Amino acid sequence: MLEGVRAGTVSPNDALERLSELPYRDLGFARVDLHRELRQGAPEAVLAEGKTPEQVAQIFVALLEGGAGSVLATRADDTARAAVRALVPDAEEDALARCIWVARAVPDPRGLVAVVSAGTSDGPVVREVRIRAELLGTTAAVHEDVGVAGVHRLATALPDIERADCVVVVAGMDGALASLVGGLAQGPVIGVPTSVGYGSAHGGSTALNAMLASCAAGLAVVGIDDGLGAGTIAARIARGRE
Amino acid sequence: MLEGVRAGTVSPNDALERLSELPYRDLGFARVDLHRELRQGAPEAVLAEGKTPEQVAQIFVALLEGGAGSVLATRADDTARAAVRALVPDAEEDALARCIWVARAVPDPRGLVAVVSAGTSDGPVVREVRIRAELLGTTAAVHEDVGVAGVHRLATALPDIERADCVVVVAGMDGALASLVGGLAQGPVIGVPTSVGYGSAHGGSTALNAMLASCAAGLAVVGIDDGLGAGTIAARIARGRE
Amino acid sequence: MLEGVRAGTVSPNDALERLSELPYRDLGFARVDLHRELRQGAPEAVLAEGKTPEQVAQIFVALLEGGAGSVLATRADDTARAAVRALVPDAEEDALARCIWVARAVPDPRGLVAVVSAGTSDGPVVREVRIRAELLGTTAAVHEDVGVAGVHRLATALPDIERADCVVVVAGMDGALASLVGGLAQGPVIGVPTSVGYGSAHGGSTALNAMLASCAAGLAVVGIDDGLGAGTIAARIARGRE
Amino acid sequence: MLEGVRAGTVSPNDALERLSELPYRDLGFARVDLHRELRQGAPEAVLAEGKTPEQVAQIFVALLEGGAGSVLATRADDTARAAVRALVPDAEEDALARCIWVARAVPDPRGLVAVVSAGTSDGPVVREVRIRAELLGTTAAVHEDVGVAGVHRLATALPDIERADCVVVVAGMDGALASLVGGLAQGPVIGVPTSVGYGSAHGGSTALNAMLASCAAGLAVVGIDDGLGAGTIAARIARGRE
Amino acid sequence: MLEGVRAGTVSPNDALERLSELPYRDLGFARVDLHRELRQGAPEAVLAEGKTPEQVAQIFVALLEGGAGSVLATRADDTARAAVRALVPDAEEDALARCIWVARAVPDPRGLVAVVSAGTSDGPVVREVRIRAELLGTTAAVHEDVGVAGVHRLATALPDIERADCVVVVAGMDGALASLVGGLAQGPVIGVPTSVGYGSAHGGSTALNAMLASCAAGLAVVGIDDGLGAGTIAARIARGRE
Amino acid sequence: MLEGVRAGTVSPNDALERLSELPYRDLGFARVDLHRELRQGAPEAVLAEGKTPEQVAQIFVALLEGGAGSVLATRADDTARAAVRALVPDAEEDALARCIWVARAVPDPRGLVAVVSAGTSDGPVVREVRIRAELLGTTAAVHEDVGVAGVHRLATALPDIERADCVVVVAGMDGALASLVGGLAQGPVIGVPTSVGYGSAHGGSTALNAMLASCAAGLAVVGIDDGLGAGTIAARIARGRE
Amino acid sequence: MLEGVRAGTVSPNDALERLSELPYRDLGFARVDLHRELRQGAPEAVLAEGKTPEQVAQIFVALLEGGAGSVLATRADDTARAAVRALVPDAEEDALARCIWVARAVPDPRGLVAVVSAGTSDGPVVREVRIRAELLGTTAAVHEDVGVAGVHRLATALPDIERADCVVVVAGMDGALASLVGGLAQGPVIGVPTSVGYGSAHGGSTALNAMLASCAAGLAVVGIDDGLGAGTIAARIARGRE
Amino acid sequence: MLEGVRAGTVSPNDALERLSELPYRDLGFARVDLHRELRQGAPEAVLAEGKTPEQVAQIFVALLEGGAGSVLATRADDTARAAVRALVPDAEEDALARCIWVARAVPDPRGLVAVVSAGTSDGPVVREVRIRAELLGTTAAVHEDVGVAGVHRLATALPDIERADCVVVVAGMDGALASLVGGLAQGPVIGVPTSVGYGSAHGGSTALNAMLASCAAGLAVVGIDDGLGAGTIAARIARGRE
Repeated sequence: MLEGVRAGTVSPNDALERLSELPYRDLGFARVDLHRELRQGAPEAVLAEGKTPEQVAQIFVALLEGGAGSVLATRADDTARAAVRALVPDAEEDALARCIWVARAVPDPRGLVAVVSAGTSDGPVVREVRIRAELLGTTAAVHEDVGVAGVHRLATALPDIERADCVVVVAGMDGALASLVGGLAQGPVIGVPTSVGYGSAHGGSTALNAMLASCAAGLAVVGIDDGLGAGTIAARIARGRE
Repeated sequence: MLEGVRAGTVSPNDALERLSELPYRDLGFARVDLHRELRQGAPEAVLAEGKTPEQVAQIFVALLEGGAGSVLATRADDTARAAVRALVPDAEEDALARCIWVARAVPDPRGLVAVVSAGTSDGPVVREVRIRAELLGTTAAVHEDVGVAGVHRLATALPDIERADCVVVVAGMDGALASLVGGLAQGPVIGVPTSVGYGSAHGGSTALNAMLASCAAGLAVVGIDDGLGAGTIAARIARGRE
Repeated sequence: MLEGVRAGTVSPNDALERLSELPYRDLGFARVDLHRELRQGAPEAVLAEGKTPEQVAQIFVALLEGGAGSVLATRADDTARAAVRALVPDAEEDALARCIWVARAVPDPRGLVAVVSAGTSDGPVVREVRIRAELLGTTAAVHEDVGVAGVHRLATALPDIERADCVVVVAGMDGALASLVGGLAQGPVIGVPTSVGYGSAHGGSTALNAMLASCAAGLAVVGIDDGLGAGTIAARIARGRE
Repeated sequence: MLEGVRAGTVSPNDALERLSELPYRDLGFARVDLHRELRQGAPEAVLAEGKTPEQVAQIFVALLEGGAGSVLATRADDTARAAVRALVPDAEEDALARCIWVARAVPDPRGLVAVVSAGTSDGPVVREVRIRAELLGTTAAVHEDVGVAGVHRLATALPDIERADCVVVVAGMDGALASLVGGLAQGPVIGVPTSVGYGSAHGGSTALNAMLASCAAGLAVVGIDDGLGAGTIAARIARGRE
Repeated sequence: MLEGVRAGTVSPNDALERLSELPYRDLGFARVDLHRELRQGAPEAVLAEGKTPEQVAQIFVALLEGGAGSVLATRADDTARAAVRALVPDAEEDALARCIWVARAVPDPRGLVAVVSAGTSDGPVVREVRIRAELLGTTAAVHEDVGVAGVHRLATALPDIERADCVVVVAGMDGALASLVGGLAQGPVIGVPTSVGYGSAHGGSTALNAMLASCAAGLAVVGIDDGLGAGTIAARIARGRE
Repeated sequence: MLEGVRAGTVSPNDALERLSELPYRDLGFARVDLHRELRQGAPEAVLAEGKTPEQVAQIFVALLEGGAGSVLATRADDTARAAVRALVPDAEEDALARCIWVARAVPDPRGLVAVVSAGTSDGPVVREVRIRAELLGTTAAVHEDVGVAGVHRLATALPDIERADCVVVVAGMDGALASLVGGLAQGPVIGVPTSVGYGSAHGGSTALNAMLASCAAGLAVVGIDDGLGAGTIAARIARGRE
Repeated sequence: MLEGVRAGTVSPNDALERLSELPYRDLGFARVDLHRELRQGAPEAVLAEGKTPEQVAQIFVALLEGGAGSVLATRADDTARAAVRALVPDAEEDALARCIWVARAVPDPRGLVAVVSAGTSDGPVVREVRIRAELLGTTAAVHEDVGVAGVHRLATALPDIERADCVVVVAGMDGALASLVGGLAQGPVIGVPTSVGYGSAHGGSTALNAMLASCAAGLAVVGIDDGLGAGTIAARIARGRE
Repeated sequence: MLEGVRAGTVSPNDALERLSELPYRDLGFARVDLHRELRQGAPEAVLAEGKTPEQVAQIFVALLEGGAGSVLATRADDTARAAVRALVPDAEEDALARCIWVARAVPDPRGLVAVVSAGTSDGPVVREVRIRAELLGTTAAVHEDVGVAGVHRLATALPDIERADCVVVVAGMDGALASLVGGLAQGPVIGVPTSVGYGSAHGGSTALNAMLASCAAGLAVVGIDDGLGAGTIAARIARGRE
């Protein structure tokens, strides 16, 4: 046998078909991943945008029935949230953040996530970060509207930035707050570019590129307006491996 | 005479004008190509977007009257579909997929097209693929919402992926499912990037580029949300040359 | 148990680890996929660009030693090809196409691939398509420089376009040839946009977008300059399922 | 004095201020260029988009009162056209093309402009081209929906393409018709890319780039959907210098 | 028969194959279009970039042997030009413009093309415009470096701009000269954006977009640095239909 | 100690926390910067877009209560302006410019800002520039619709352009007016690209790039449609350092 | 006093000037941040690209003399590395990764970082990640060339992916490996898009966008080819807060 | 006569031809603007890139002979600078900044320009700003490498930032320093984005967009790497109107 060659007899489909033994629920239009929370500690979330209200509500219920510790639908407009409420009357919601959720069995909080934002208009994304991070079992400390145009407003946030296990910076337009915080924080920093602003803000691309090109090492970035992603990785970092 | 020179006496317009003997129907605002089905096996389809409802309906009827085996209008909103129904009461339609169609003389099915999608929101494009592929005389096997974030959901689709004459992968956002399937399938794979998602999904461009840059050889791609194109080439591949 | 829920006891990593029984060869810097040809009918090809000449040569040899029916390195500059030749003296090469290859056990040809190009400068990509298609066991009929600026030059290619099991159109700049052929061919058409041209050709993006936006249904596209990908899918289509 | 130096004593503003003797009408929010028709043969047109209906109507009237041979407002929605009609009851309009105009003293027609379009959805731009070209005193011959996906439909347009003093090609999506016609016509060809299509059509940028990258020499292009510009230059070419 | 239907019995390939009677010369890697000059008044030009020096030279010779009135190769570097000179010792060349050409039977000049450029760096493109326009039988009057940053330098060019049958504006960076001239000229204006400049000039895209978005109606644009295209259409306009 | 090393004992957060002694007002969703006017001479302005009407109104009031010399909300739609008026009945507003403001203690005017625009549609941005510049204590002289397509209309603006301490040029589409004025003015020129136009205007990016690539040295640019920014820097330049 | 107003007497510059007490070393062309390691646990790294070899070497030495635990220069070509070696003979280097470094006082390793890459060409970035992560005091487990085109090659990496405190995925082209791993890993995942590939890989932008648009929550991304950034945040996550 | 109509008898070309009395020197390939310094206070500068060394040197000399107070060539490589030195032996030069210049009659300095940069690699642009600003008669105070990743390094620059008549911020990558300084400075701020960095820095576009989207009002921006433009406008601001 050649050096370094690994070989076997199983066919790839045979191996992959063993995956079919992992649980999910087939709704026809959706295969709800009931295994994700077991596998990764965070349940599947429902991106409402692009789905009909009925689809959102049915996936929401399927996750609940499947035993999820929490269920969260994001980017859910009024109609989608109403469809969920019709089936899950005790769901909580935040209209500004377009979120609706149920907390069934949230882990005991561990770790601190500091969330700072550049401006008031970043508010909806800030809330999405906070909701997700808290549902995954961590504590969030929020400081809004502390952008660099008036840098003294950041001062009261510094103690939280310093002691947090993970800092999330939510900023649109120039995204400069991420670089500034990235040069001060001791823990990992997650940037969330937002689509706030007009013209040269290019729907969030400017902030995104600025965060990626920041010379503050120790900063990583999620997609534009992706509060869910930021909340998820921040909670995962803050809770650490058990 | 110089070596390699081909010469003749006909003028280009003379030659091209012989093309005018091929059939089409001139509605003034449209020249309906009644010859396409003869020439290529698939009748002209009607892209409703950008046309008035009346134009859509008249072109639809012209194709029917011209003897098309099937007629399909895509991206047809409620008004456009209503205009067609007013003239063609027996037309079938799918509101989510924004399609309306009539099957007059569909060829006997030959070949299998497996259609897999990454998420629920890809549903409308999946349906457009399926409708077109079936109208062109092939069988479609559909597996929705099997994206890589929960890869075990793909397992039950593997037998169809393995035996299909052509696999169509419908995916937005990162388009990663196309690469994964492209590394497993034995037959040709056609990717359909969708405009699903927000922010960094860039309206489908991210999925498109990812599919094009995939190192899975054996994968080709149609335009963003172009279910019609995918259904057409998939049927052509699956049916083979007769 | 809930309706539609699939469940099992295996862990995902357990299932995926069964994949480790499939053969590959570990060179440290590369894991050469010796299983691909078994799985998909086409051996892994070596993209030389971005690898050192030594890496290219060692992967090339590993594939040969692993029993590949053919081995092909693409986008290989003079140095890379020299490194391969040093280890595999009987390798064939095409300097213009920057390809080097060895045919050990090519399948008996089946099916016809017609390859047409818009201009002389598309030549290197045309050759890459042809080499790959032939190594995978199909026949290629090539017609170069038949772009729409002098459309009469296409005439002699029409019989091959008509009878081919798959047509590959290689074109840069405006990519218009793909649309024209896509409206004439009976079989599936694969477009290969090339980076030929300057200025508004945008390194192939113009041709790529034009091919994707073509209203010729039945046309799918591979990445810019990706002759390998086109050759692979064309051969797969032309040979059909056995 | 140094060789090649030109010198004088007038100040630049002195010279430019002599320009102030040319006529225009100052409405406060607009300086209506009453001199343009004298200077360039074509009166100023009114781009309605971005102006209030009242502004559109007042500029329209100012041009009429200033003695324009014709007045044309483009991209005028229902409200803007109603505002014009309220002041100029005999204005003609075309709702699909969003144009409204008055012909007071159109020059006797000279020259022929052939206008061909790729698809039905290009219709509104085709009409804008035609209206402008005719108002500037030329004859327009229109052939719609002759795109390359069914190239035989172009045949009946060939005689007009051949004898025209200028050919205007209106096409969205892949814009391939411009290349094909550009390789056949004897006269100058003006391409008008349109924003027709979705996804990879990129709002007209794909057609624009394809036309610019066309290897059909003798083809120049105006902005996306700019029927007015195409009609203007086509009339200028067709009429020639007197 | 349905109203408006055109029908016939010829197959499309039959019709198109009649095109094969038009002359071209097949060099294997190129099909040299010997018919273009007959068809469109301007012989095929050779874009040297992307071809080997040998290919350039052989196509050049094939055109000469085919009876072209003139032959011109553009974007030809030192090596390509040397290859042509080796076979065609009497070829003229311009190193800065990277052009090499032979004039065999240039039509008697008719019409005037005024060529104005914004800056010294636009010089190579200016020369390409001039060479092509003159080879096609028109007179060119050139005024270089008259950009708007020092607008008084334009003054001496105004008489030529006024009396020309076609004005060509060559400009990079902001492309503003095209708009200014476009508001003054009486004849058609062709803009040639150049890749001159750095940073925000974006390789010519800024000038291109500015020219396309100009509100000077009567202005059309060719591709970035495409002096050949501008020279061709300008000559066609200036000579008029005979 | 090493040469060039600066060292100290304070921690960065200690230093930055001293910033917390500067005044701002914390509304929870906003930290209103009451110190900005002291620090930079210009009070914080309120970008209404992206905020709820209630947020806009509360921030507006907080600035007033904090003693701002003037308060200005920009890009405020009808609802936002109504919310402000409900709390601040004496606020002035301009519906076309979407601005609402209160002048409490505007500095005595010093310096002259000349504002020129290319077209009528630039009007809303012109007004935003003027309002802001006047609120910051300078005089604005406005000349609208003097674009280069009819350059004689610029003549009457030349005296103001010549004597102004700062010239602001507001232009969309090709942005050419900025280059022309930039070559004539003696004082600094600030360009404001606007999102006026369609198609190749690319929402203002074309004008922006053209202004940045202008070879008129002495020209700087603010973001697309950013009348506020232009008004601020123009006032700062015109007033000079005291 | 108004509710929520914070006020103080210090001027912003007074406060910020206290920052000047933090240590740095002023080399004229550079202010070497000797405080960063104290403040953030990771010393400043030297980006060699864009600096002269002498500048790189002097900054390198200044950091060493300033007491850095380790010094690392990245993207350093042969000349830059030679300049460093001339002054710091005991520096280690990796030519493929273009890195040169000295480890003086690396913290005792804590935590595990798993680094997986899609292909051989990602090797240089993989090494940069590893070097940085190890210099910051963590353990790195590397698995190269496990991309999805041959997914079975990933199997042997799964145990490390499962037990790592942080997973770094290095991938160019389609970036699909990040999504797949992001759906399997329990810990946080950091994606590093690479500029590997050609054409539709768009220099890494395709991989970047795909990673950002991935629906695998728990994934954040650094800039294209930014191995340093990924190594830094991964080490920070893996070591946790002490 | 209609209200608001201005009219006259002069033709536009008559008026513009009076401009021809302003001085320039015609070198054939260049029309050297000898009037610019009179008109705008700053002599024409020579952008060497895109010109031959001989052209650069001749324009340089023409400006000197024409009486310019200073002459400056930028982006001049070794060859271009050598060509200038051959004709103008007393020219000063800066190889890193690629500048060569002669100061004949520089105005007495007036006003202060503070120039701050984010990193060492911005050095060449910093020097270009300084050279131009000083040649135009102002004083420049430079502080390099004070980017936000180590914000304490900015502290010693604050007094100059506070007292300057104009602040120039030179920064690549994220451009965040411009926003920070823009929130602190009292005078106008000019941002110069640089092409420093790789990957997501996008050749300076990221910094450019970030500066344009900054919410620090009072900040305007010049083109990427355009030190000349920044130096010119900064000097014009700092010197004020006399």
